Amino acid sequence: MSRVFSGIQPTGEPHIGNLFGAMFNYVKLGEQYGKNALYCIVDLHAPTNPLAYDKAALTQRTYEMALANLAVGLDPEKVIFFVQSQVREHSELSWLFTVQTPLGELERMTQYKDKADKLESIPSGLLMYPVLMAADILLYKADTVPVGEDQVQHIELTREIARRFNHTFGETFPEPKAVLTKEALRVPGVDGHGKMSKSKGPSSTIGVLEDFGSIWQKLRVAPTDPARVRRTDPGNPDICLIFDYHKLFSDLPTIEMVNVECRRAGIGCIDCKKALLPGIERILSPIQDRAAELAKDPDRVRAALHSGAEQARAIAAPVMEEVRSKMGFMPE
Amino acid sequence: MSRVFSGIQPTGEPHIGNLFGAMFNYVKLGEQYGKNALYCIVDLHAPTNPLAYDKAALTQRTYEMALANLAVGLDPEKVIFFVQSQVREHSELSWLFTVQTPLGELERMTQYKDKADKLESIPSGLLMYPVLMAADILLYKADTVPVGEDQVQHIELTREIARRFNHTFGETFPEPKAVLTKEALRVPGVDGHGKMSKSKGPSSTIGVLEDFGSIWQKLRVAPTDPARVRRTDPGNPDICLIFDYHKLFSDLPTIEMVNVECRRAGIGCIDCKKALLPGIERILSPIQDRAAELAKDPDRVRAALHSGAEQARAIAAPVMEEVRSKMGFMPE
Repeated sequence: MSRVFSGIQPTGEPHIGNLFGAMFNYVKLGEQYGKNALYCIVDLHAPTNPLAYDKAALTQRTYEMALANLAVGLDPEKVIFFVQSQVREHSELSWLFTVQTPLGELERMTQYKDKADKLESIPSGLLMYPVLMAADILLYKADTVPVGEDQVQHIELTREIARRFNHTFGETFPEPKAVLTKEALRVPGVDGHGKMSKSKGPSSTIGVLEDFGSIWQKLRVAPTDPARVRRTDPGNPDICLIFDYHKLFSDLPTIEMVNVECRRAGIGCIDCKKALLPGIERILSPIQDRAAELAKDPDRVRAALHSGAEQARAIAAPVMEEVRSKMGFMPE
Repeated sequence: MSRVFSGIQPTGEPHIGNLFGAMFNYVKLGEQYGKNALYCIVDLHAPTNPLAYDKAALTQRTYEMALANLAVGLDPEKVIFFVQSQVREHSELSWLFTVQTPLGELERMTQYKDKADKLESIPSGLLMYPVLMAADILLYKADTVPVGEDQVQHIELTREIARRFNHTFGETFPEPKAVLTKEALRVPGVDGHGKMSKSKGPSSTIGVLEDFGSIWQKLRVAPTDPARVRRTDPGNPDICLIFDYHKLFSDLPTIEMVNVECRRAGIGCIDCKKALLPGIERILSPIQDRAAELAKDPDRVRAALHSGAEQARAIAAPVMEEVRSKMGFMPE
């Protein structure tokens, strides 16, 4: 039996980078894995990022992220969809891994080093967070973890933690594999400054639930091929973020048309951007409609998460019993 | 309302250093504090010490430490006596404190530096253990913590963690005070090499449940005043560990007799050691009898701990609800 685990940051309303990088993939994997697909909004990780954490907003952002995933098509009846802080076993297993993980392995993590370098006072959570992440995954004995490239090193650490535990206490955990989603690496921000990211502010992102007027305002001023100064200059779609968006949203004839006409200056950049709108509406409209429907009944979203947490616990509880027993803790 | 919390290491059968340093004190405080006295066998801390942790022995050592405390007179009906790993909230709160505690504060801990210096690979648990200790205490909003001197710095850190949480999330935790037990500092090992400690091996310790023949063997060869070479040399009780034991075990007339007669060579060291035996038997016999009684029914000990864990959870659960809510986690 194979099992997939994925952690979802509670960053509030997701953007199209999240949509193509992760959310569509969750729905697809969910159809394949069913109740062996666990999707966890990792709110216990949120406070490890002192720049991102906002105690007044966390519940709302958790709720928005849940609602958006349901709107995209994640079916809480088919998969297990839950909030990390509602399953206590995550922090328990995290502690039990903490006692076994050498500090040196954590201090070597690239993401830790990058983030720590920017801080005057380093919260311990920043160093320890990959251990909690390992616990998130191994608590369900998941063997498959869809992640972005920035998390690959943490999955390698998870494998090391699993190996070490198995070596010390007997075969218990699988060594999970990272599954990279290509799109996660390349949805560019609409401001032209690299990968789309909430941390760069709203000028970088196109929200999954953003209204189309606002999306158009961002597209209208989005940079294109900088060498194309005049309408009559031929453009290069290969370096244009609008063409990247076409490849995500548009139908094949439109993509082909843009590819040809841009290169021979057959269309201008504004034409090209306008041609993107039908695709965006085709994909985002049904999601936004479902989101509006769900937003009318927040209790339904919460009840789905609550049921998800119960299902997660049902898997986690016997795993923790096994871990406690193997580590020698007194049975209750 | 004042509440006392004390952590008990699951080191197996305790020695008389534990008895006078902690266990008698637990009984006394228990009479004063009743259900506001929490005594916790801190088994989640055990694996942070790679030199002391033994997975095959942990449950047995937890059981032995529990049994000995009950035999000494700790009344599980009057106080709350439980095993840490049976109350999940400890590791949950520990994680939530981890995200808020600067690494620098942990790296400054003297005990961490001392222990880390001796290790080639430092387990993260060694660095993080004072955070779990802070969680142990604050989970019950305890304000009074009986500890040995080596833990005073960790209590100061606990106060700092409480202050920081209160500052960030609003008044929640008291700032607990360390209460030093004098005897904890000065029960000498029977081998004459400093403080009595299990880590120095059985030649250092006199077990609370040790049989009197074995205790006598250790006393017989115990070093006394090194300047007293011949029976006719006068001795100095102030530098003799046997006199320290007299002060713990013997009645006042015996203590006074030894104090006078040693100094004028009225008694020899063997006489002095023999004079100690009635006191030892008077104090340890009833404990050993109760221990033998309890050992006939291990389920009774386990049931007492189980009930203790339930009582501990009943206090911890609303505290965690308050913490989660103040930190902004989605309510269930």
